[in-house]
Amino acid sequence: MVSENTKDIEELSHMKRKILREAERLIIEKGYSNTSLREIARNLDISPGTVLYHFNNGKLEILREYLRTALNDLNLAQFVQDLDYDSFDETLRDILGLTLKSHRKYREFAAAIEIEILSKPDSFRKLLDLIKPEIQIALAPLKVLLKRFPDKNYKLEGKEKELIFAIDALTHRHIFYGNFFGSDSDLINLLVTVAKAILENDL
Amino acid sequence: MVSENTKDIEELSHMKRKILREAERLIIEKGYSNTSLREIARNLDISPGTVLYHFNNGKLEILREYLRTALNDLNLAQFVQDLDYDSFDETLRDILGLTLKSHRKYREFAAAIEIEILSKPDSFRKLLDLIKPEIQIALAPLKVLLKRFPDKNYKLEGKEKELIFAIDALTHRHIFYGNFFGSDSDLINLLVTVAKAILENDL
Repeated sequence: MVSENTKDIEELSHMKRKILREAERLIIEKGYSNTSLREIARNLDISPGTVLYHFNNGKLEILREYLRTALNDLNLAQFVQDLDYDSFDETLRDILGLTLKSHRKYREFAAAIEIEILSKPDSFRKLLDLIKPEIQIALAPLKVLLKRFPDKNYKLEGKEKELIFAIDALTHRHIFYGNFFGSDSDLINLLVTVAKAILENDL
Repeated sequence: MVSENTKDIEELSHMKRKILREAERLIIEKGYSNTSLREIARNLDISPGTVLYHFNNGKLEILREYLRTALNDLNLAQFVQDLDYDSFDETLRDILGLTLKSHRKYREFAAAIEIEILSKPDSFRKLLDLIKPEIQIALAPLKVLLKRFPDKNYKLEGKEKELIFAIDALTHRHIFYGNFFGSDSDLINLLVTVAKAILENDL
């Protein structure tokens, strides 16, 4: 019985991976808005119901799964261990550098989220609810850093989303507009200033 | 002869306005990417060639025309005269407040530009070339302010686009994500910090 169950789970996740791969291919080829669950299903020769079974929030949950993949890929637990906490600013630069690297690697996904929000503002609130755990995971390195510098008057609680989405907005512009803010180091200087402004002020 | 020519010009600008109004209607109804010159022409019972005659860079030039309308609407010459230049920060807040108001009024247009850039990164460079004069006009109040405070070590030259598009990215997020950064005053605090960081640093 145990092995049967295990096999079921493996098959499920195999199908989930197949759906994600096809979704990714279509999003890159035609853009997020032009990609439908129906077409993903048709191309994989499965029913739209099967896609919804694996991703019951539909396209938004596909976005969430990408975000998870991107976060796993960062190996944050190791990253947090390897950080050098001598200087607050330098460590913040390292964290923002990793953010930039990840956004660049997953730029199609980043563009997809941005377009989704612009075309359907309501879906943003839904997405934000859906990715609450991922937001916390993404902020783990910053939280560790803030704990190491308790004397700095920085506060993250209640400003998690503001911080992530301000960094995100500027990083997207930099990537999508062809290194818009100059070198990566120039962008990171700007991001450090913005991050500190948000952490300092009572926004 | 003179009156004939004048009549021609009036008719041209009348047609241009008709095209713009129909483009606006379609963009709001179906989104920018789903709006085609062909459909604008069909709805107005004119040929696609007539649309291209009035907007020979096609949809990008329609975007530019919107930008011009939005800028005209701001009545910047009067705004610059009415500003109170007692405090640098307070005057910068007034300028950024006007930016926010304008973005909010023309949010459909703002979303259209953002989607255009995300779906076709190449068209951004083209748009940027096209709207060079409008960027300078939009920056007029800030330029006047900087001249009034020559002792501040701020430099705008060479950083015009960086400044506009950083402000723009954060303002869009605030508007599209439902006052994301808190109150408008909270957003403007953040924008003042970002603007000063860009004007100060050698980005």
